[in-house]
Amino acid sequence: MSRFTGFTTHDVRFPTSRDLDGSDAMNPDPDYSAAYLVVGTDDPDGLEGHGFAFTIGRGNDVQVAAIDALAGHLLGRDVEAVLADMGATSKSFVDDSQLRWLGPEKGVMHMAISAVVNALWDLKAKRAGLPLWDLLSRMTPEELVDLVDFRYLTDALTREEALELLRRAEPGRAARRAELLERGFPAYTTTPGWLGYSDEKLVRLAHEAVAEGFSQIKLKVGADVEDDVRRLRLAREAVGPEVRIAVDANQRWDVGVAIDWVNRLAPYDPWWIEEPTSPDDVLGHAAIRRGVSPVKVATGEHVQNRIVFKQLLQAGSLDVLQIDAARVGGVNENVAILLLAAKFGVPVCPHAGGVGLCELVQHLSMFDLVAVAGTTQDRVIEFVDHLHEHFTDPVVVTQGAYRAPTTPGFSAQVRPETLAHYAFPDGAEWRPVPTEDPVHLHTREVPA
Amino acid sequence: MSRFTGFTTHDVRFPTSRDLDGSDAMNPDPDYSAAYLVVGTDDPDGLEGHGFAFTIGRGNDVQVAAIDALAGHLLGRDVEAVLADMGATSKSFVDDSQLRWLGPEKGVMHMAISAVVNALWDLKAKRAGLPLWDLLSRMTPEELVDLVDFRYLTDALTREEALELLRRAEPGRAARRAELLERGFPAYTTTPGWLGYSDEKLVRLAHEAVAEGFSQIKLKVGADVEDDVRRLRLAREAVGPEVRIAVDANQRWDVGVAIDWVNRLAPYDPWWIEEPTSPDDVLGHAAIRRGVSPVKVATGEHVQNRIVFKQLLQAGSLDVLQIDAARVGGVNENVAILLLAAKFGVPVCPHAGGVGLCELVQHLSMFDLVAVAGTTQDRVIEFVDHLHEHFTDPVVVTQGAYRAPTTPGFSAQVRPETLAHYAFPDGAEWRPVPTEDPVHLHTREVPA
Repeated sequence: MSRFTGFTTHDVRFPTSRDLDGSDAMNPDPDYSAAYLVVGTDDPDGLEGHGFAFTIGRGNDVQVAAIDALAGHLLGRDVEAVLADMGATSKSFVDDSQLRWLGPEKGVMHMAISAVVNALWDLKAKRAGLPLWDLLSRMTPEELVDLVDFRYLTDALTREEALELLRRAEPGRAARRAELLERGFPAYTTTPGWLGYSDEKLVRLAHEAVAEGFSQIKLKVGADVEDDVRRLRLAREAVGPEVRIAVDANQRWDVGVAIDWVNRLAPYDPWWIEEPTSPDDVLGHAAIRRGVSPVKVATGEHVQNRIVFKQLLQAGSLDVLQIDAARVGGVNENVAILLLAAKFGVPVCPHAGGVGLCELVQHLSMFDLVAVAGTTQDRVIEFVDHLHEHFTDPVVVTQGAYRAPTTPGFSAQVRPETLAHYAFPDGAEWRPVPTEDPVHLHTREVPA
Repeated sequence: MSRFTGFTTHDVRFPTSRDLDGSDAMNPDPDYSAAYLVVGTDDPDGLEGHGFAFTIGRGNDVQVAAIDALAGHLLGRDVEAVLADMGATSKSFVDDSQLRWLGPEKGVMHMAISAVVNALWDLKAKRAGLPLWDLLSRMTPEELVDLVDFRYLTDALTREEALELLRRAEPGRAARRAELLERGFPAYTTTPGWLGYSDEKLVRLAHEAVAEGFSQIKLKVGADVEDDVRRLRLAREAVGPEVRIAVDANQRWDVGVAIDWVNRLAPYDPWWIEEPTSPDDVLGHAAIRRGVSPVKVATGEHVQNRIVFKQLLQAGSLDVLQIDAARVGGVNENVAILLLAAKFGVPVCPHAGGVGLCELVQHLSMFDLVAVAGTTQDRVIEFVDHLHEHFTDPVVVTQGAYRAPTTPGFSAQVRPETLAHYAFPDGAEWRPVPTEDPVHLHTREVPA
């Protein structure tokens, strides 16, 4: 019998604020970061599981501390037993009653659970010799519903309804798997639209996106309405009427302002408005959706857990559901959310970007295609061309589509030289900065 | 000019699980804990501000790390300026865009902000020579609305509406202040009703509560319905028909189960059902409220921020709003929540207990009485007779009422000998435990 013997965390930060990559109306100067975890075992196979929480700089150390708080929940446990029943394993973290008080099921502690659960899925997939999307897609409907914690969901989705959804999708799995391997999964690109970019850079990158085969791009909005109208007009002129342009306000607005602002942008035919207001505001999103139709409403990257997603669906708050691979409690909770979205017939278009979020979330969309939703209709995975070079199995996006990974695992593994070079605060990337207080060099407040 | 020069955190834990004090359906073995903060200045007055986040054991170290992450936001700043504009000060923590990613405005990072903001209020009140409730009650309506971050609230409450509410309450302040000083603020007691207590202990403590002048008690429920029916029957027989009995499920149920369970208890006339389901479930609470009427629905101790409270009020999800002094972003956000409750006409009955929550929250209810809601009708503050001896200015509850504190500050200060004795893991209270891994001695999972 093998046991978990290694649980090593890393505080890794990239100085992305220097070029305003990733700048938006709420996050003017992110330093994309990972609270990174490697779990090891004493099994002779020598395989490791890698996982992480994504943050944008300050507080990444707090996130690392939260992951460390879970070490005692894994070290010493039987590897086979832990990986064989990932539903129970996930619950063993979520249901620790003392840690639960720190959420419950939200924020730093829940993101820490995500990192551990995802690292275990990475290990499980490596041991199975399969990429995660394929491992999940080969599980039976019964095995899949066993992954889900239905607590707080049963007024919207029961275990039996979820089983039925999965069984209905079962016959088409093989055909959709073949289709996925041949055509990939549609992507859209946020690369042109960061708020810190000049008009010239925006237009140039929008042209490039179309030339590269993308049928959807995204622009950040929300700082200044006149700027946004101009930028959306320029983007629309650049890409033509057929390419979809999503806009993303990153939670910048109150309900009334959101409705007014989006209606100012409407002449340039935005496809969806993303995160118009607080991710906690189920009723606010519903009001905005009513006020901006036919522009669609999308949200989810900051939605804390399945319970809020359930309500967003119940209240008719969104047209597009955006999962994030590392904010809710990892693969297990995302399976629950994919099932909820399927029940309500809402397409899932994952949030990605950051550090490694593209690498992770592609697996979830591909599983959704093969075994749950069964279609790519109106479904696209966000693509941001940042930081992929730091991963051992980076995403491959060609002709506007993610290509299905074939390497076993969850594509979560960062190169060892990156872990060393970008270690905060002692890695080579950070050491040259002349400072007594490096944390505050990059401080800037949200504009009022 | 004086500056902030001290920012010292402590991990303090009390071994409350040994006697099942504080046991409920979701938290079978809490070790009540505080992630405790002392802020100091170089002012000759030598005054300190004390604040804390309350946790129930494991993870208190993560909470301490989150508070420590805010040290750089305070150290070196001008004391007068920070305390003079507490609205801007609070926003300077909440709006740090990088830290915001860890919530936003929820969980570990938001509780950390609460500890810092509350410590600053403690210091401000000490400098003013007033107990916090009195300091707040002397502020003008304009000064009070300047404390509030109206972001994400304006579809339910605008600054102008809040001003109007406060102005309407202004003429009666002096009379209500006098009334408060004479009669105190009504309390109810949870002491009889912990789930781990025997029937005999429950009945004895219920009798004692009535004898001590309480007009409301509370029972924990949610583990076993037959046990709950028996316990509520025994409690009702003990206290008679006039004393209100609240029941508290601590988030144990899904929506359908909650409705069925409460209706089983209804023959014994429970006053409210508290936390019937997930604190995130606005729509679930609304459905439960419709299903259990005339039993009232109460929630709030785990509600993460003003945005969720706004929706609970908008959706008609509750009859009783329960603020917590140390979960949302401190005094400032609680002022916002009190204003929201006043706008919707819902009484506020604070959550207390834990470590020092009674000490803190009494100030907020007393301010609510004097300057916002203007009444104690159907308003009671929870009282649990635990751990008060560790505070330098403990609550005084006599004849079923909290007596208004008169000592300057926020009553937040823990005795230095307690900070030393209960320090985790090196204090005398914890050192004798023979262990290599003290964290796991008290591990027990939530019952399935």
